[in-house]
Amino acid sequence: MVATIIDVAKKCGYSKATVSRAFASPEAVSERAKARIYAAANELNYTPNPIARAMARQKTDNITFVIHENQYPAILNPFYSSALEAIMQETMKRNYGLFVTTNDHVRLPSGEVSIKKHMDGVIIAGQTDRSSIESFCKQNIPVVVLNNLIQMEHLPCIAVDNYHGAKCAAEHLIQKGHRRIALLEGRFSPQIYHDRHNGYMDAIVSAGLTVDPLLIRDVDANELCAETCAREMLSCPERPTALLCTNDTIAVGAMKAAMRMGLRIPEDVAVIGFDDSYVSRVIEPELTTVRIDSLQMGKLAVEMLFRLIDGEELSKWYIEMPTELIVRGTT
Amino acid sequence: MVATIIDVAKKCGYSKATVSRAFASPEAVSERAKARIYAAANELNYTPNPIARAMARQKTDNITFVIHENQYPAILNPFYSSALEAIMQETMKRNYGLFVTTNDHVRLPSGEVSIKKHMDGVIIAGQTDRSSIESFCKQNIPVVVLNNLIQMEHLPCIAVDNYHGAKCAAEHLIQKGHRRIALLEGRFSPQIYHDRHNGYMDAIVSAGLTVDPLLIRDVDANELCAETCAREMLSCPERPTALLCTNDTIAVGAMKAAMRMGLRIPEDVAVIGFDDSYVSRVIEPELTTVRIDSLQMGKLAVEMLFRLIDGEELSKWYIEMPTELIVRGTT
Repeated sequence: MVATIIDVAKKCGYSKATVSRAFASPEAVSERAKARIYAAANELNYTPNPIARAMARQKTDNITFVIHENQYPAILNPFYSSALEAIMQETMKRNYGLFVTTNDHVRLPSGEVSIKKHMDGVIIAGQTDRSSIESFCKQNIPVVVLNNLIQMEHLPCIAVDNYHGAKCAAEHLIQKGHRRIALLEGRFSPQIYHDRHNGYMDAIVSAGLTVDPLLIRDVDANELCAETCAREMLSCPERPTALLCTNDTIAVGAMKAAMRMGLRIPEDVAVIGFDDSYVSRVIEPELTTVRIDSLQMGKLAVEMLFRLIDGEELSKWYIEMPTELIVRGTT
Repeated sequence: MVATIIDVAKKCGYSKATVSRAFASPEAVSERAKARIYAAANELNYTPNPIARAMARQKTDNITFVIHENQYPAILNPFYSSALEAIMQETMKRNYGLFVTTNDHVRLPSGEVSIKKHMDGVIIAGQTDRSSIESFCKQNIPVVVLNNLIQMEHLPCIAVDNYHGAKCAAEHLIQKGHRRIALLEGRFSPQIYHDRHNGYMDAIVSAGLTVDPLLIRDVDANELCAETCAREMLSCPERPTALLCTNDTIAVGAMKAAMRMGLRIPEDVAVIGFDDSYVSRVIEPELTTVRIDSLQMGKLAVEMLFRLIDGEELSKWYIEMPTELIVRGTT
């Protein structure tokens, strides 16, 4: 027989409400009462039943982090891992549970409705589709979009000033005297891709340099593809003297290509990444990169979500995270 | 008004049981019935209520990953992130939710009982204490311990053959002709620390080499401490020609020290790590290391846990993961 709150109340002589409070809001109960209640609970092997509590409140005390299949794995993804870490920590502080799942996985077999597990709110990371968001909204489940801007009324989005970041990175290389600056572009979601591309283009054109289409290449954002691409470019007679990479993983692959060809970094070829993820400080020389504070981004997303869950107003529906050039050893 | 399963049944003309099955086990319902049920559900904006379902079954369909505060942050921890990724993926396949939390956080205010969120099972990673485990057991919550061996009856543990891994690493360096091999030991939980230490010692003694206490140093397992320690050792007149590091993060710090002192790796100094975490393939030259298949370790842990949740027997209560030397560019 599992002990109930009534058994505990009977045993210690306090009311059901006081016993309940001793677990849910211990600061509201005297030390003396708590001591007796906990002793009775331990003797009866009682713990509060969160299922019954959820049933009574029709709240789950869970939120969900949804990431697109293409950005999988979530935890081992150098960019999203920091945001997820911040989200997890804030969620725990509030005694909420966190589900981590993919876009596909929140769909019911009916295909139309988008929820397999009940949740009080959702953070969608990066790539997504409008129908998923609409389905959550229809069910009155608050949604915050992280690292993407979706034009929809009352949809909070946190995106990144990618244009400015890429432009600063290219300008830094131009200031260092580089004239042949290659762009290795990861195949990211359209907005991120285009903003970083345009930042590079505008810096090149503003400096009066010629845009050489041979120096602009799309790559899959993994080390191997980046290494292959960089090796090809660096083997050309008129090779680039600098490689601007649209994330740090691409930059690490590009650095490996250069080092394995016997080129010195930054003397023979300079490299810049994007994100300032942990890999930028593992590689030696450490990577010059464009910093996005993804921990802060995760923290802001979960704070916005909890405000919505609590029925509060948001002062802003759109936040653009700044970017900052971090100069290290590769430029 | 939120639509209930009764409303959907009434609208589509199927029984409550069939509607329920169409969501919980769609393969058991005909395509024709499903089409009508989903259409009715969408029209009424109905989704199944998992809280009511949990109440009826007294199951939460959640498991919890508990990690010690000392090993925090969990997601950004190079070793545990792989295990956690595997656990997350297996948990999702079964439509379970996953909580990630620390040791401290699962304690109730009463201090004695160990659960804030209801869960069907728990995976405890690395460092832990017996009282937490006993508290879960008292509540009939199955526990699996990952990367630690706790002697307790019917407590499934998955640990690592650390002794063998460290011994092989030292033997590899000896075979390469090294005679002054330093040991940089991370301050891990006692069992892991001692097993790796003893593996090194036995290899040195078996080879007839002298154990030099000046070559054995405890370090905090972060890059900066490792770099400082390696720099000190490499600055001595009788410097070591090889550094055996008890995890990859320490090895990366040691490599940075060597490279920044102008030493060539592996010609002037060889370096070996432990874990084969992602950092070992980011650094260049890539790191020779002792591989632990932490993805597989996570997968085994969650499989054992689900067997226990399903009330099945385990064929083994203790699994020792093998280790394997992976020779790359640093030796």
